[in-house]
Amino acid sequence: MGKVHLLTGTKETTTEYNLVRVNSAWTRKEKHSHTASTESVSPAMIYESLTDTGTCWTVVTPIIFSYKVIETHALLDPCNSTLLTGHTQGPQQADNMRIPKKPMKRFVVVDQEVYQIYGPEINKYFEANNVNFKILALPTTEENKSMEMALKILEELNSFSIDRRTEPVIAIGGGVCLDIVGLAASLYRRRTPYIRVPTTLLSYIDASVGAKTGVNFANCKNKLGAYIPPVATYLDLSFIKSVPRRHISNGMAEMLKMALMKHKELFELLEKHGQHLLESKFQSDSEVFGPCSQSVFRSTRLAIVTMLEELAPNLWEDDLNRLVDFGHLISPALEMRLLPALLHGEVVNIEMAYMVYVSWESGLVTEEEKNRIIGCMVGLELPVWHQACTMDMIQSSLQERLKHSGGLIRMPLPVGLGKAEIFNNTSTDVLISAHEKWSNELSTHAV
Amino acid sequence: MGKVHLLTGTKETTTEYNLVRVNSAWTRKEKHSHTASTESVSPAMIYESLTDTGTCWTVVTPIIFSYKVIETHALLDPCNSTLLTGHTQGPQQADNMRIPKKPMKRFVVVDQEVYQIYGPEINKYFEANNVNFKILALPTTEENKSMEMALKILEELNSFSIDRRTEPVIAIGGGVCLDIVGLAASLYRRRTPYIRVPTTLLSYIDASVGAKTGVNFANCKNKLGAYIPPVATYLDLSFIKSVPRRHISNGMAEMLKMALMKHKELFELLEKHGQHLLESKFQSDSEVFGPCSQSVFRSTRLAIVTMLEELAPNLWEDDLNRLVDFGHLISPALEMRLLPALLHGEVVNIEMAYMVYVSWESGLVTEEEKNRIIGCMVGLELPVWHQACTMDMIQSSLQERLKHSGGLIRMPLPVGLGKAEIFNNTSTDVLISAHEKWSNELSTHAV
Repeated sequence: MGKVHLLTGTKETTTEYNLVRVNSAWTRKEKHSHTASTESVSPAMIYESLTDTGTCWTVVTPIIFSYKVIETHALLDPCNSTLLTGHTQGPQQADNMRIPKKPMKRFVVVDQEVYQIYGPEINKYFEANNVNFKILALPTTEENKSMEMALKILEELNSFSIDRRTEPVIAIGGGVCLDIVGLAASLYRRRTPYIRVPTTLLSYIDASVGAKTGVNFANCKNKLGAYIPPVATYLDLSFIKSVPRRHISNGMAEMLKMALMKHKELFELLEKHGQHLLESKFQSDSEVFGPCSQSVFRSTRLAIVTMLEELAPNLWEDDLNRLVDFGHLISPALEMRLLPALLHGEVVNIEMAYMVYVSWESGLVTEEEKNRIIGCMVGLELPVWHQACTMDMIQSSLQERLKHSGGLIRMPLPVGLGKAEIFNNTSTDVLISAHEKWSNELSTHAV
Repeated sequence: MGKVHLLTGTKETTTEYNLVRVNSAWTRKEKHSHTASTESVSPAMIYESLTDTGTCWTVVTPIIFSYKVIETHALLDPCNSTLLTGHTQGPQQADNMRIPKKPMKRFVVVDQEVYQIYGPEINKYFEANNVNFKILALPTTEENKSMEMALKILEELNSFSIDRRTEPVIAIGGGVCLDIVGLAASLYRRRTPYIRVPTTLLSYIDASVGAKTGVNFANCKNKLGAYIPPVATYLDLSFIKSVPRRHISNGMAEMLKMALMKHKELFELLEKHGQHLLESKFQSDSEVFGPCSQSVFRSTRLAIVTMLEELAPNLWEDDLNRLVDFGHLISPALEMRLLPALLHGEVVNIEMAYMVYVSWESGLVTEEEKNRIIGCMVGLELPVWHQACTMDMIQSSLQERLKHSGGLIRMPLPVGLGKAEIFNNTSTDVLISAHEKWSNELSTHAV
């Protein structure tokens, strides 16, 4: 449960207390003292020590987060109950909700563009299920990702009025929509459960699986937010068929990130089937795809599982050594310069391509491996170089990172295919010569 | 670590995974499989089950909250390092911070009225300690407790720029100030540590010890907020000397709440020394107090410990059976009617007085016990009756509570002195006859 260091007092003067519930009251009880079988013991602890100036209490208490990520299909088919009850914790609770005394209530925020395509289906779904619902369609673009929009959602949510324990807010859209709604719900009554339904490939494999919510503030990406996971995320690949091809490439950049960091099979799937995945838009019944349809499920599942593996032990990002940061050291600054011309995944990919040269220059990947990775990126129709990614920008971004990562650079780098380590001592010389070789070999790929 | 129910799949089809770190990557490993001694295992779990429509992953992961509540005196004496380093987790970390490469930076929000009294001392403290600091003095009143004020704080915080891991935001003021700053800090970069310095008795024993932050929204108290505790709270009773007598009574209402719910000794302290505590303003060196000065420390400590006992096991209020709700079932509605004429603790006390009559009418306390409690309230100069607390208001408040407390009323009631239980079946007849007797006996105490 984590070590506890106490500021004051020697070990002798610190008393450790468990918390024991007797009838209605919680009471401190010295650790290791006898507990009756009728008493319930909390995992929380209180440490008490005496200092020169009085008492110091340290409270240590775990909050358990539990959330579901559920693959489904035909999510908007009125017969599919997932959207209404998939988040409930057990079959019994789901049953209780299916035999309600009054109609269920659901507050739904949908991205405006998504609403233009799926609006009729969404309305039909809730009507057919006799739900008392309110749909708010909003232009959830990067430019609108602000506290103002979150407050607008909160005003509507408050007038509609839901039970904050049993009637989760539903967000349907891309990453921006899921992030804003997640923040609004997390603030409402200090935490109202919410559900994520990603409609883009990028949000399907990235925003959907973690706990981060947020809005931009003072010209900075996601400067305000909370680490509160949704109660559930529903994954339905059929939404991806309405995503433009370029935005599918965009999402595949984050899949490739997980592949490069920790999964060779996923890399080889993207290398081999990348073009088919792009063509078919991840629709397994697509004619383009034919017999390779298993790679649709396999590649998205591997992307999600590898991401969950990294996020679950580090939900609040307390550990600064994060493989998921690959491609995200320089890209925030680059993105502020290149948006909206370039998309998030594209900018991330430009950085990843450069970092592969840093790995190569450091002797961590072979030339063949480097070429295979760059080849895969090109196959996924992702940019692999950009003139805006100068040595100046690289160095200032790494300086900025140092400030927020406890004084170490913590740079994830591939060490072979589907394997990575975190490095703190990459020399400026290596960064510069990697930059030269990267530019020499790939500047012809400029976008 | 809490039970996990899985929505889908029978036990046979669910696989439980631990998360094991090998070098830089976290990897799933089936539960009970062999783990090498070099591998670190996370407390997080991933459960995977197959459904008709694909895979369902359930992530269960604990976040450990740890915070300190520290009694100190002369907090603003430049020689007292508590305000700068009291929050650090161990002696080593505190040392690191005392030998900094660059000056420490601190962003401080102070209630405007508090700043008028302590402004020079606060400035002197940071100057003498060579801190690069920015003080924001704000009118943190109930009327200004809004997201607008939180955003104003965030703009200033963002321009000042701090290291969000090592440079906590400091809030100095009453409950409103601590709540707004707590929310602003919790939102900034998804969580920036903050420190609470309460300057009123109410915030000293109430807002300071828990995790709640918040602002009012759409005419509702604390409708938006977060459950993020401060890294540390510094308790210095000397601030109380500048608090008006009526506001000290106000704070003692919440002390009395804890006494009635779970601590007979605290009740008897308040009963016996209440007037002295009021006179002396909790200053142990006060001439008024003389030989009873121990009751200053004893009573505030007991109030804090009993509160910590209830909050630590239930930091996010997931358990709806809460003794700390005593006096808070009807008071939110009553408060909206009576503010600003009455103070929070006063309104709470009016409800507590009524509830004591409900207990008496239910045979849970004797007439003598009831009279002692009411007598104690009167001694603390707290109102014990108000005409606005009608049966209509009581019944509509309890109806409203039912909606948000899982269909049970969960009414804490004293059962003797310093003991309480939670009741769900108090009849309307009892509520009505208690209301009659309460009015008959106490309406002469109308404020």
